[in-house]
Amino acid sequence: MRRARPPISRFPVGAVGLGESGRVYAGVNLEFLGAPLSQVVHAEQFLIANAAAAGEPALRAIAVSHMPCGHCRQFLQEIRGAAGIRILVTSDAADGCAAEWRSLASLLPRPFGPHDLLPKDAPLVLEPHDNRLGDPVDAVANGFAAGDLEGRLKDAAEAAARAAHAPYSGCPSGFAVADGEGKVYAGGCLESAAYNPTLGPVQTAIIAMIAASGGSAGDVVAAALVEKDGAVAAQEATARVFLAAVAPQASFHVYKYRSPDV
Amino acid sequence: MRRARPPISRFPVGAVGLGESGRVYAGVNLEFLGAPLSQVVHAEQFLIANAAAAGEPALRAIAVSHMPCGHCRQFLQEIRGAAGIRILVTSDAADGCAAEWRSLASLLPRPFGPHDLLPKDAPLVLEPHDNRLGDPVDAVANGFAAGDLEGRLKDAAEAAARAAHAPYSGCPSGFAVADGEGKVYAGGCLESAAYNPTLGPVQTAIIAMIAASGGSAGDVVAAALVEKDGAVAAQEATARVFLAAVAPQASFHVYKYRSPDV
Ligand SMILES: [Zn+2]
Ligand SMILES: [Zn+2]
Repeated sequence: MRRARPPISRFPVGAVGLGESGRVYAGVNLEFLGAPLSQVVHAEQFLIANAAAAGEPALRAIAVSHMPCGHCRQFLQEIRGAAGIRILVTSDAADGCAAEWRSLASLLPRPFGPHDLLPKDAPLVLEPHDNRLGDPVDAVANGFAAGDLEGRLKDAAEAAARAAHAPYSGCPSGFAVADGEGKVYAGGCLESAAYNPTLGPVQTAIIAMIAASGGSAGDVVAAALVEKDGAVAAQEATARVFLAAVAPQASFHVYKYRSPDV
Repeated sequence: MRRARPPISRFPVGAVGLGESGRVYAGVNLEFLGAPLSQVVHAEQFLIANAAAAGEPALRAIAVSHMPCGHCRQFLQEIRGAAGIRILVTSDAADGCAAEWRSLASLLPRPFGPHDLLPKDAPLVLEPHDNRLGDPVDAVANGFAAGDLEGRLKDAAEAAARAAHAPYSGCPSGFAVADGEGKVYAGGCLESAAYNPTLGPVQTAIIAMIAASGGSAGDVVAAALVEKDGAVAAQEATARVFLAAVAPQASFHVYKYRSPDV
């Protein structure tokens, strides 16, 4: 909770998750002044993006400081075996009752989820993805000098787009950011079967930066987006809105690719 | 379901709600090609915006074609007495079991909701709001000829901002659109205690247009936004992203006001 950044709500939330591998992942809520509320990141989403970035295959249990909202209960459905994830809400104890373990199924009974839209064997959010990106629209996307920051950002955004969870729109996208020390962090979109709880690639890249460096979104000095040309769920304009609000001085390059299916 | 517009998911959803007044409201899901998934409108949200626009004080019951997602169960929490709203999922019958009435409380037990953040007597989403907007930043906002389209759009957006449900950001906003026949439709933001399920003013204005005219978002020829200058949850840039994706030829004016509290 102490690492949360909720300048609008002033309602800090902290979450910790135990992966199948035995590793532990943390999450906090993030709010961005001047951006719409749809760009807010909840602690449970931060935790899942963090686990996805580490290649964690599944989550066993989550402890969270406040009762998860419906948006998060829905986002959690993207994990295989979601119904059995055990959840401990630590504020329950503060309210005078003992905190008790609940299943996600008990908090979101009769869920709408990935299997309402996807084949049973489609990879879910914490499972490996290797999305084919097709050819770049603009040849300038190649030809960076080795170690060049712009080239490192493009490579990181491309790798994130390949690993993105985008089965609903069919439009994998990746975003990479660099801080003032030249360190690069990236993330891909993590879509939800219910669409709106989707984490955009800008959010997952910022999560990666904050998780690794403890910095803030305002530290971004350069950014790159990789997405499909003519994407039905387009990210470029929304990424510009985000950068204008939180890091207006950042440079920004966009690389579009033509889907191999077109 | 036949009136839904889901060009991305091709998953049409229809919902119908019974208000305390005895009136009935409909809702369908709306997806917008080229806009991010966070701008999607669910059928249950359409229904609530429709009821809010009509001044309906509360909802008694909802019938919906598919199991409501967690995002919608959360958005429904903004209605006073939400726990008792009865929900009939008509696809239950199609699946071979008889459709049965459920309470919202049974679909979202132990909810996070408005009362976790607001005083008990704060007006909720279907209750009357009269937000004070303060002085316009730019004097050009006045001085339209009577009946002028631009003036009608500004007046409609301003009225929608006054009636908006924005207790979490403190930034009421309203949006108005005109179609090719010069008819004007407007809506204000309807915020959620969980932030992300919030309906932006662009969405509620489009809902008002589609509910009244049966048209589509592409019919918009002119639009106006009224919002607070320096809003922590700003709408202007997101509104531009939306218009660029769905109605790029539309004219657009923005009117900012200084909060009376500043
Ligand atoms: Zn949440
Ligand atoms: Zn929904």
